[in-house]
Amino acid sequence: MGRVTVRRPVERWTGAASVSRVDTLAVEEPLQIRVGGRELTVTMRTPGADFDLVAGFLLAEGIIGGRDDLVAMKHCGDDDYNVVDAGLAREVAFKARAFPTSSACGVCGTESIADLAHRARWDVAADETRVPAEVLGSLPGLLREAQAVFSRTGGLHAAGLFTAEGQLRCLREDVGRHNAVDKVVGHALREGLLPLSGHVLLVSGRASFELTQKTWAAGIPVLAAVSAPSSLAVSLAEKAGITLVGFLRPPTMNVYTATRRVSQ
Amino acid sequence: MGRVTVRRPVERWTGAASVSRVDTLAVEEPLQIRVGGRELTVTMRTPGADFDLVAGFLLAEGIIGGRDDLVAMKHCGDDDYNVVDAGLAREVAFKARAFPTSSACGVCGTESIADLAHRARWDVAADETRVPAEVLGSLPGLLREAQAVFSRTGGLHAAGLFTAEGQLRCLREDVGRHNAVDKVVGHALREGLLPLSGHVLLVSGRASFELTQKTWAAGIPVLAAVSAPSSLAVSLAEKAGITLVGFLRPPTMNVYTATRRVSQ
Repeated sequence: MGRVTVRRPVERWTGAASVSRVDTLAVEEPLQIRVGGRELTVTMRTPGADFDLVAGFLLAEGIIGGRDDLVAMKHCGDDDYNVVDAGLAREVAFKARAFPTSSACGVCGTESIADLAHRARWDVAADETRVPAEVLGSLPGLLREAQAVFSRTGGLHAAGLFTAEGQLRCLREDVGRHNAVDKVVGHALREGLLPLSGHVLLVSGRASFELTQKTWAAGIPVLAAVSAPSSLAVSLAEKAGITLVGFLRPPTMNVYTATRRVSQ
Repeated sequence: MGRVTVRRPVERWTGAASVSRVDTLAVEEPLQIRVGGRELTVTMRTPGADFDLVAGFLLAEGIIGGRDDLVAMKHCGDDDYNVVDAGLAREVAFKARAFPTSSACGVCGTESIADLAHRARWDVAADETRVPAEVLGSLPGLLREAQAVFSRTGGLHAAGLFTAEGQLRCLREDVGRHNAVDKVVGHALREGLLPLSGHVLLVSGRASFELTQKTWAAGIPVLAAVSAPSSLAVSLAEKAGITLVGFLRPPTMNVYTATRRVSQ
């Protein structure tokens, strides 16, 4: 496994004076994702939990639907671990070849949402989960406490999967927030836990269309973000029946969609 | 042109009580980029400055090198503006067909950097620009003042192009920080200003490999980020001779590479 952080010299300025010191950086390296030996994409990620990342990515792209669709994963390449090849079950591999995959299938937001709705696997809207506002407010603190690496670099996004009672089930970090989410979801997929009914996904940054898509693909009923959601994230959450929480900065937060799940 | 923000109802919680109010969201919509009628990619972006975005993207991907390589741009599609088709000069179009493009060509960081060095157009290392630490410290404040939209949504990344004396030349915002940089660089390209010797590019978030690549493609000698750089951003900046500034939070900042350009 590659390193998550590296140390290197830096010139630290305070006002008009500078000193040399050593700083810790989050590692960013390319990961090539192959399916059955054929290159699918390259993502820039922080090494670690690569199989989780690939599983989560393939789920979000609609290529696999669960653990049984993924029959093998291996690192390839000579002297590094920056290539992962995923082997699909025979009938899944056949379907994957027939459909071009893209995070944004349509060329307007409405089409993109319609495309996703067409291939949705889970009825998230029917999920009866309720989460007390107080529990939601406790999550950012719990996530920060668990982020051992964050305090060392300030350079990593985090995604945390919580139960509706506020218990942390899985935490992953990455230079890319989409990768952090793929790693969390991929871990759950490989454990056979999908759909993730009754769970809350917390992300350290903003909520985009892409993160909402990944939330839906995992069957998670509540997506909470520390920062702002985009317009298309809100539209997609509304269509999916996902509760989208933004600006989760206790004691305040905004609930944009499926507000019934947040209780006093 | 599409809208940059939309308003929608939201449930605002403070502690255990909630009220309904209206919130402003940053718009996110897909943009399909075509070259000579053929689809190249889809990016999720905030509408506006789409031609700048496409020009900057094509430059960063190594498809075009300057204004003369881009002979036409037009919006396509029936009822929206989410498709842009770029027409290339004849000899450029021929070269573009011969090379597959990817933001991360190699499958390890060292290869990715070597690939970029191989096709570098500007000798940024030779740029003699000097920037006083005090000027760098003034930039985040100048950027925030200029971000009229930011104060309304909290959802937009910003990229600002400054002279070495701290004068703002161009500001662009987007839900994606790579898009904000493409818009700034594409604007400069379309004005015939490349390479951007003697300039500083400031980004509101973190500095990744991808943003450093875009900085190099534009010939900008100084990249400053409000948050952390990644390991590969630092390695690439070192190779390119770009001065990479991170954690630019006056009165402090870290200078990671080509430290000679920052003066007292």
